[in-house]
Amino acid sequence: MNSDKRPAFAAVDWGTSSFRLWLMNAGGDVLEERRSDEGMAMASAACGFPKILKSHLSALGAASDLPVIICGMAGARQGWVEAGYVTVPALLDAVLSGAVRVPGEGRDIRILPGLANRDPAHPDVMRGEETQLLGALADLGAGEHLACMPGTHSKWVKLDGATVTEFSTYMTGELFDLISKQSLIAHSLAGPEGMDMAAYRTAVSKVVTAPGRATNLIFQIRAGQLLEGATADISRARLSGTLIGLEIAGAGGDAASAWQGTISLIVSGRLGELYGEALSALSRPYRITDAETAVKRGLARAARGLWLSSKD
Amino acid sequence: MNSDKRPAFAAVDWGTSSFRLWLMNAGGDVLEERRSDEGMAMASAACGFPKILKSHLSALGAASDLPVIICGMAGARQGWVEAGYVTVPALLDAVLSGAVRVPGEGRDIRILPGLANRDPAHPDVMRGEETQLLGALADLGAGEHLACMPGTHSKWVKLDGATVTEFSTYMTGELFDLISKQSLIAHSLAGPEGMDMAAYRTAVSKVVTAPGRATNLIFQIRAGQLLEGATADISRARLSGTLIGLEIAGAGGDAASAWQGTISLIVSGRLGELYGEALSALSRPYRITDAETAVKRGLARAARGLWLSSKD
Repeated sequence: MNSDKRPAFAAVDWGTSSFRLWLMNAGGDVLEERRSDEGMAMASAACGFPKILKSHLSALGAASDLPVIICGMAGARQGWVEAGYVTVPALLDAVLSGAVRVPGEGRDIRILPGLANRDPAHPDVMRGEETQLLGALADLGAGEHLACMPGTHSKWVKLDGATVTEFSTYMTGELFDLISKQSLIAHSLAGPEGMDMAAYRTAVSKVVTAPGRATNLIFQIRAGQLLEGATADISRARLSGTLIGLEIAGAGGDAASAWQGTISLIVSGRLGELYGEALSALSRPYRITDAETAVKRGLARAARGLWLSSKD
Repeated sequence: MNSDKRPAFAAVDWGTSSFRLWLMNAGGDVLEERRSDEGMAMASAACGFPKILKSHLSALGAASDLPVIICGMAGARQGWVEAGYVTVPALLDAVLSGAVRVPGEGRDIRILPGLANRDPAHPDVMRGEETQLLGALADLGAGEHLACMPGTHSKWVKLDGATVTEFSTYMTGELFDLISKQSLIAHSLAGPEGMDMAAYRTAVSKVVTAPGRATNLIFQIRAGQLLEGATADISRARLSGTLIGLEIAGAGGDAASAWQGTISLIVSGRLGELYGEALSALSRPYRITDAETAVKRGLARAARGLWLSSKD
């Protein structure tokens, strides 16, 4: 355990709609934390990336030469400074050497690149999850792994040791948001935010049996409310189960087709319970690695590699 | 050929976002036509159903006692007067006896009910398509049929002669609209409204092979634009092909599982070309019945059954 209280760097996970910053010591222990909703969307639209970063560093009294390591959407084309993509198959450590320095700033600020699959039959991109994976490696251990990283754009990643061999993105979270708020189904979901877990498991099983029926199963949510008076709890569970089940059906029939081993869920909070419940309903073994712990570890590994390797 | 120029009734197809009215003679020939965007959404929100109907009848100089037959969303719970649902399996003629008279109006105005599948394992509803089916019966002929009625909420209907035995709704059109306008993918589709038909056919085939990958294939549209510079024409074709292909995969694996015969597409305009192209790409035989002709015939059949049967 490192009890050093001196900040060695700041680590930032800068997503589309969230900003998280940690001051860490040379050992990667968290000394201070800041969280806000100043994600890329807000930073691009109004306040600007440098201003947001400075305000958080100032609030923590960070030294003006404290280096900063950033992962996530800040490195997108529409972000702060484009940090490109490392092409898979790739060793996760390759993202470290691809870090881009933000020009014109007094302190040393680096943004980590994402990963890209450039196979024209299967193009895909990630940004931020590669850093979570880097931090999860110690948990995963050697050998082959199938990691599932639930979210707005869920990632399913095949790993061979520290090498990402392939990955696929599923738009599950974004579609849940769009459909639950703006489609015909929105009426059926209006109400308190509960979820009927029996209805959830049934929805998962139904769509896995017949994934082509996904948009029919979603319409049935409305019909179930009209004809049977299904509650918002049941309707919400059916929508969530259908979309998460569709994702598992796809990932299970694709990259994971031959995968009979334990699935490594890298996730935090409520989403972890939902994906765990879905995998249990399908009798698929899984283990959970906390996503926030993973991204902190990944950022720390990147920072230490960049600035502290000689001191290790 | 009936050349009677005297209006015998008005027929209205009142959808969610469109209003179409035809003055017809006793033989069901169209004498005059009116179209507008005053669908249920607009009628419920502002102007009101009676006012919209009167304005169109007045513009055509219709007699104050001319009867009016209506199908579609005007009969929904949130419409003008609720017209309920006839439970399947049902003879299509059963919707005629379920017509609901609008109270408090000088003229005789009837709204046709929809159809419902009340099987709790498969709840579903339609409103308007039953009238199209009624009008398409003469084209379809005796025996079993599988009808596909593309749209915002596409319907796949199993018919045995004039009996609807089962049906399923797919939210294809609504999802295309939501995803193309409001998701991450919207950026990739911005531009002129063209569509690359080779990319469309490939997308159909891909999703039919692995329907569980649908939301991954949709995300790949964005990745394809980022990594390969895919044009809006290609991106739009991929989204449309993925969603329509997913629908065909589902309907082909469900009600239509044993269906090897010709699929009866009941559709008008551009959507007919897209569905025809998709079915061709999958080597599925189909024939097209014009949806607008079908709904006019169905409304005429309903009107004549209600008001003119003794004169036939």
